[in-house]
Amino acid sequence: MKACGLIVEYNPFHNGHVYHLESSKKKTNADCVVAVMSGNFLQRGEPAILDKWHRAEAALQTGVDLVVELPYVFAVQHADLFAKGAILTLDALQVDTVCFGSEQGDITPFHNAYSHFKQNEGNFTYQLQIGLKEGLSFPEASRRAYEQINLTTNELNLSQPNNILGFSYVKSIFDLKTSLKPETIQRTKSQYHDEEIENQIASATSIRREIISSKNLSEKAKSAIPLSTYHAFLTYLEKTSVLHHWEHYFTLLQHTVWTLDLETLRTIHGMEEGLEYRLKKTVNHAESFQHWMELLKTKRYTWTRLQRMFVHLLTMTTKLEMESIHMLKSIPYIRILGMNEKGRQYINERKKNLDIPLVSKLQQFDHPYLTIEERANHSYYLAVEAKKRARVKNRDIEAPIILN
Amino acid sequence: MKACGLIVEYNPFHNGHVYHLESSKKKTNADCVVAVMSGNFLQRGEPAILDKWHRAEAALQTGVDLVVELPYVFAVQHADLFAKGAILTLDALQVDTVCFGSEQGDITPFHNAYSHFKQNEGNFTYQLQIGLKEGLSFPEASRRAYEQINLTTNELNLSQPNNILGFSYVKSIFDLKTSLKPETIQRTKSQYHDEEIENQIASATSIRREIISSKNLSEKAKSAIPLSTYHAFLTYLEKTSVLHHWEHYFTLLQHTVWTLDLETLRTIHGMEEGLEYRLKKTVNHAESFQHWMELLKTKRYTWTRLQRMFVHLLTMTTKLEMESIHMLKSIPYIRILGMNEKGRQYINERKKNLDIPLVSKLQQFDHPYLTIEERANHSYYLAVEAKKRARVKNRDIEAPIILN
Repeated sequence: MKACGLIVEYNPFHNGHVYHLESSKKKTNADCVVAVMSGNFLQRGEPAILDKWHRAEAALQTGVDLVVELPYVFAVQHADLFAKGAILTLDALQVDTVCFGSEQGDITPFHNAYSHFKQNEGNFTYQLQIGLKEGLSFPEASRRAYEQINLTTNELNLSQPNNILGFSYVKSIFDLKTSLKPETIQRTKSQYHDEEIENQIASATSIRREIISSKNLSEKAKSAIPLSTYHAFLTYLEKTSVLHHWEHYFTLLQHTVWTLDLETLRTIHGMEEGLEYRLKKTVNHAESFQHWMELLKTKRYTWTRLQRMFVHLLTMTTKLEMESIHMLKSIPYIRILGMNEKGRQYINERKKNLDIPLVSKLQQFDHPYLTIEERANHSYYLAVEAKKRARVKNRDIEAPIILN
Repeated sequence: MKACGLIVEYNPFHNGHVYHLESSKKKTNADCVVAVMSGNFLQRGEPAILDKWHRAEAALQTGVDLVVELPYVFAVQHADLFAKGAILTLDALQVDTVCFGSEQGDITPFHNAYSHFKQNEGNFTYQLQIGLKEGLSFPEASRRAYEQINLTTNELNLSQPNNILGFSYVKSIFDLKTSLKPETIQRTKSQYHDEEIENQIASATSIRREIISSKNLSEKAKSAIPLSTYHAFLTYLEKTSVLHHWEHYFTLLQHTVWTLDLETLRTIHGMEEGLEYRLKKTVNHAESFQHWMELLKTKRYTWTRLQRMFVHLLTMTTKLEMESIHMLKSIPYIRILGMNEKGRQYINERKKNLDIPLVSKLQQFDHPYLTIEERANHSYYLAVEAKKRARVKNRDIEAPIILN
């Protein structure tokens, strides 16, 4: 079976994702689609609107054949580490191609850009360091460094978000010496960060905003998501009465900042350059999570970076726990969230060449990353009222979703 | 001016306290009544229903002349340490007598009991250790040790709660070689733990229960409290919409237990004999604070002891931070919560002989106990919605209440 790998967050799974899925399948001529998906916390440092089980199920019902979880330690990270975790996972699962959406839409410029990048990597790294020292944020410093080595004016513009992400995948594929073949499809016109739903292909941001602000699955929201996602929302709401967003975790974060000392705060991943002092200074004045973010934000501390730090603070994930991911040359295990019959066949076919554990039940395997995963889940589900919590939370210790 | 000292919690200040106040004044022939009161967390390990400022104000308006705060490190402790902190405070303030309510009502048996106790202290300590080793709770082991040295059958029955508390005061007064004179008045018939309001002198427990369960200041509740307390409730509710109880802190505690490791949990004061394992084991099943307590409670872990541990966990107060109080021979500072004109005169009169700082504004003084106090306040006010919080919380950095 020929498999195409997708790197996704599905927050939530929407029509743009359906398009990505179908186009990728066609472009790569794949029999089977494997998605590696963030869990309950996302790359940009946010709790997912629905938990990973309900997001995975919606994707499986609309054509993805196998969904595996990108470990927290890779998911809540900047683009390069996020890409590393995802590529290592797809490589371990022996998919043939990795197909991502980009503004560019053609893979050749990515290949050329990679060659050019490798020839200028020394200069790039140097320029990046200068930018960071000047106080630029990581994305801004990267953008400027790419510009310095002529990767924003050439055939591939690395100042566009999905080109950057795609280029991270390509870099990982080659730097990690995998046998994966990168492929890309052009994204439809809806922009990554669009705030309002304009047509049937809308950004995840606009869909979440519409649903959370209208407190309802309006016709507008329904028009932008497949039926399986609509059902996932209804089911999740019926079970928990909650759609997760940052404000649910505000009091927990205040408590943490107030009761932990500076030394302990400093052990948290993402707590850099005296951010712990800023947290202590601002916590008294914040009237909401949004307000706190506004008080904290500076040119150097970008929104995304602050949010990621808050996820790690909420889950108490330390720098020490994160250290090992830089050294990793392969993913230590694969956690299956769900599959259909084709996905199951694919797994059976590739299992014999798989030299790492396939975790389908948490109790069967022990790993420091799973300890972090457990804390992340505990924290995530605190947004759900205690009496309703067990029903969704216990899903995590059960077997994967099997679709017939 | 002759001053009488009272040791109180006023949770809330009720008619029984008014009776205690007036009778004590009469019995000791005092010009001025000084109360040392627990702050926002109480001896039995509970958040106070109203914050310390509103409780202090109610007491001042109904006849107490000066209210000072018993530091958290002494307040949320078993009877002996609670007594030590309160007696050291009243001794530093140079009051003449300390008058407590007891089932007994006559001070002579307390004197006799103290003499008898000192003669048998070795045996008492030995019996206490045996009881504790057998797995009895501290109160139960104490009760049995008192019984062994004949202090429960004699003229003073040390198995009754207010006699025990009173005896702790007497012990502290003499053991700490203060010049305070102990005095007692008989408690009226309402029992310490009565759960329902039966008459105008009702237990604080029954009053809190009535108010919290009826979500209202019912006529029944009003009949058991002075007008000043009624107004304190109205004012506090108007500002915060909250009357504090443990369920407000349930999610914060779950988060703490889920995200901290066993080693960190073990540093918390009151985390003894593997309680951290029990917490980790039960946290998943608890549907409310009450439910969690029921899951945790055993013969050895009494309700009060568990609640105190939860207060320290909520405020992240460690064993290390508490260590120094055992060595203390005097109180390190006095925090004034409020006074009327007579209280102010009294303070002025005694100030010249006072060799420790009188803290009326927090910014003027720095002490490790005040750092703990600050954390305790932060945690306490988390029950109040963020937007309303500053209004009550900032009271803590302002000047004391001055009543004219």
